[in-house]
Amino acid sequence: MWKAVPKIRIMDTTLRDGMHAMAHQFTPEQMARVAAALDEAGVDVIEVSHGDGLAGYSFQYGFAAATDEEYLRAVAPVLKRAKLAALVLPGIGTCKDMQMAVKAGVKVFRIATHVTEADISEEHMGLAKEMGAEVVGFLMMSHTVDKEKIAEQARLMESYGADVVYVVDSAGAMTPQEVKEKVSYVRSCLKIPVGFHAHNNLGLAIGNTLAAVEAGATVVDGTLRGLGAGAGNAPTEVLVAALKKVGCEVGVDLYKIMDAATVLEPMMRRPQVIDNASIMLGYAGVYSSFLLHTYRAAEKFGLDPRDILMELGRRKIVGGQEDYIIDVAYEMAQNKQVVAG
Amino acid sequence: MWKAVPKIRIMDTTLRDGMHAMAHQFTPEQMARVAAALDEAGVDVIEVSHGDGLAGYSFQYGFAAATDEEYLRAVAPVLKRAKLAALVLPGIGTCKDMQMAVKAGVKVFRIATHVTEADISEEHMGLAKEMGAEVVGFLMMSHTVDKEKIAEQARLMESYGADVVYVVDSAGAMTPQEVKEKVSYVRSCLKIPVGFHAHNNLGLAIGNTLAAVEAGATVVDGTLRGLGAGAGNAPTEVLVAALKKVGCEVGVDLYKIMDAATVLEPMMRRPQVIDNASIMLGYAGVYSSFLLHTYRAAEKFGLDPRDILMELGRRKIVGGQEDYIIDVAYEMAQNKQVVAG
Repeated sequence: MWKAVPKIRIMDTTLRDGMHAMAHQFTPEQMARVAAALDEAGVDVIEVSHGDGLAGYSFQYGFAAATDEEYLRAVAPVLKRAKLAALVLPGIGTCKDMQMAVKAGVKVFRIATHVTEADISEEHMGLAKEMGAEVVGFLMMSHTVDKEKIAEQARLMESYGADVVYVVDSAGAMTPQEVKEKVSYVRSCLKIPVGFHAHNNLGLAIGNTLAAVEAGATVVDGTLRGLGAGAGNAPTEVLVAALKKVGCEVGVDLYKIMDAATVLEPMMRRPQVIDNASIMLGYAGVYSSFLLHTYRAAEKFGLDPRDILMELGRRKIVGGQEDYIIDVAYEMAQNKQVVAG
Repeated sequence: MWKAVPKIRIMDTTLRDGMHAMAHQFTPEQMARVAAALDEAGVDVIEVSHGDGLAGYSFQYGFAAATDEEYLRAVAPVLKRAKLAALVLPGIGTCKDMQMAVKAGVKVFRIATHVTEADISEEHMGLAKEMGAEVVGFLMMSHTVDKEKIAEQARLMESYGADVVYVVDSAGAMTPQEVKEKVSYVRSCLKIPVGFHAHNNLGLAIGNTLAAVEAGATVVDGTLRGLGAGAGNAPTEVLVAALKKVGCEVGVDLYKIMDAATVLEPMMRRPQVIDNASIMLGYAGVYSSFLLHTYRAAEKFGLDPRDILMELGRRKIVGGQEDYIIDVAYEMAQNKQVVAG
C-alpha cells in the first residue's frame, strides 16, 4: 500500500490543547507526570502551554492553575528524549514570552495564525530561529479556504523560516477527501514537511490524520484520550495504533503510550465524547469559542442555536468576531418575523 | 468529488448491537422511546434484538431484561416509517424464532455468519424470503480474509436470496484503505447492494464508513452515541452529519437524529469511549468476547494480556474457540520460560 514505510513524527499536545478541556487547571506536577510518560513512550515533541499559548493566562482566555513558566520548568527536567514545545499565538504571546520559554527549556515553537493571516507570524518566527529553536507554523481553520490559499500562506511561513507547516482543522470540519486534496497540494508547493492537526467533531480525527499521512503529511498531532475542547483531538494512543496498522514507523511504543493515557485518565474532568454541540460546530465549521455566544444570542432572539451556528459557518466568521454573532442572530430573527408575518 | 449524489440507507442498531453495552438490560419501554425518535428522524431500518440476535437470551450469551418477542412487540407499534429488523445468528436463532419475529412485525432479517461460513445461512435466508422479509447478509470479521474470499462468501449469500450483503468489521480492525479495497471488490462481484458495519476500536468507525461509501457501499450501520461493546460503533448522529458533509443524501434529519441521541443518553451505563482494551482488540484484530478469557489466561500464566491478544490475532482465531486461548497462553508461557532459561 505504501511505496516505502513512511516515518511519521508525533507531536503530543495533551498539555496544551488538552488544557481547554481542563479549564487550564492542570497542576505543574500533573503535567510533569504526563510528560514523563509521553517521553518514556517515545513521543518526539511535547507541547506545554496555556490552551491559547504563551501568555494566554488572562481574564479574557482563562486563568490557568500556574504560569507558563511554572509549567515549562516543571516539565523540562523530566524529558529524556522528547523536545519541549510551546504554542504562540501572535497577538497574545510576545517575544518576551518566547525568551522566557527558551530559558525554561523550550526547543520548538509552534506559531499559529488564522489560515489567511500568516503574515503576522514573521517576527515571532524570526525570533524563534534566532534563538535556535525549531519552528512549526500552524494554519488554523484551514477548512474555510481553498488549497491554493493555504499553500500561499504556508509558503509565507516557509519564507519566514518555518521548519514544518501544519494544515489545522480547528473546527473538526474537514472530510478525508478534503484533507487529502489540501495536504497533497500544500505538500507539492513546499520544500519543508507538512503536518496535520485534527479535531474529532465529526468522528474523523483519526480518519483524517490517516488521510493526511496518505497525502504526504509526515508530522501529526494527538492528545492522550483525545483530551481537548468539545469533541477533542486525535487520541495519541489510538493514532499510534492506527499508524502502525497502516504500516507507518512512528518511533512510539504502543503499550507505553497506552500506559501514558492511563496516567492521564484520572486527571480528566469528563470522558472525551462527541456531544451534539460538537457535531454542530464541526458540521457548520465554526470555532468552539463561539458556542457560548451562540447560546446567549439564541435565547435572546428565540432562535434555535443550531440554525445560528449554520449561518455563522456560511458566513465564515473567524475568531475575534464574537460580537458579530448578535448581529447575525438579530438579522435572522427579523427575517423569521417577516416570513411568519 | 461525487459523480452523482449517492443515496445512502442508514440502518440503526442501537437496540441490538447497543444491547452489549447495556448488558442486554434495555427495557421494552426504553426501546420504544428510542425507536420512536429514530423513526421520527427518518432512519430507514431499526434493528431490535438481544445483542447476539434472536434467542441470544440465554445463560451463555446473557439474560436480557425481556424476551425478543416482548422487545419487538413494544417497538413495532411506534414505527411510522421505519422497517423493523431482527438479527439472526444461525446456530443461535432458529426458524421458529424467525416466525415469531415476523408475527411481531419484523420486515427485515439481518443474518450473520463468520466471513468464511456463509453456507450456514442458506436455510435462514430461504425462510426469510419465503415469509416476504428483506434479507441482509452479514459477513463478520471481514478483516481476517482477503477480498476474494469475502466476495466468494458474499456471492453465496446473494445466491441464497440476500438483498444486501454487509462487509462487517467486527473487531474494528480495518483501515480505510483496506475497507475501500474490500468493499469495491465485493461491490464489483455482486448484483445486489453492499453494506458496511464499523466498530470504533481504532477511532475509524466514521472514517471507514466514509471510505466504504466512497468505494460503493450504499447501506451503512450506526448506533446512537456509538453505543456498543468496547469502543462501540459508528455513532448514527455523527455518521449522518459526516455523510451529509461529503454530499450524500441520507433521508435522515440531522437535528432530529441528534435529538434521538439525547433520548438515549440518560439510559446509557457509561459514556462510549475508546479504552486501552478496545485499542488492543482492534490492533490485534480479535473479537471482544475473547477479552475476559484473555485476562484470566494472562493471570494464570503470568503473561501480559496484550501479548496474548496479539498472538490470538496472528492465529486468526474465531468466535467459539475461546477454550483455545488457554492453550495459546500455555504455549506462550512455556516459550517464555525457555527463553528466560
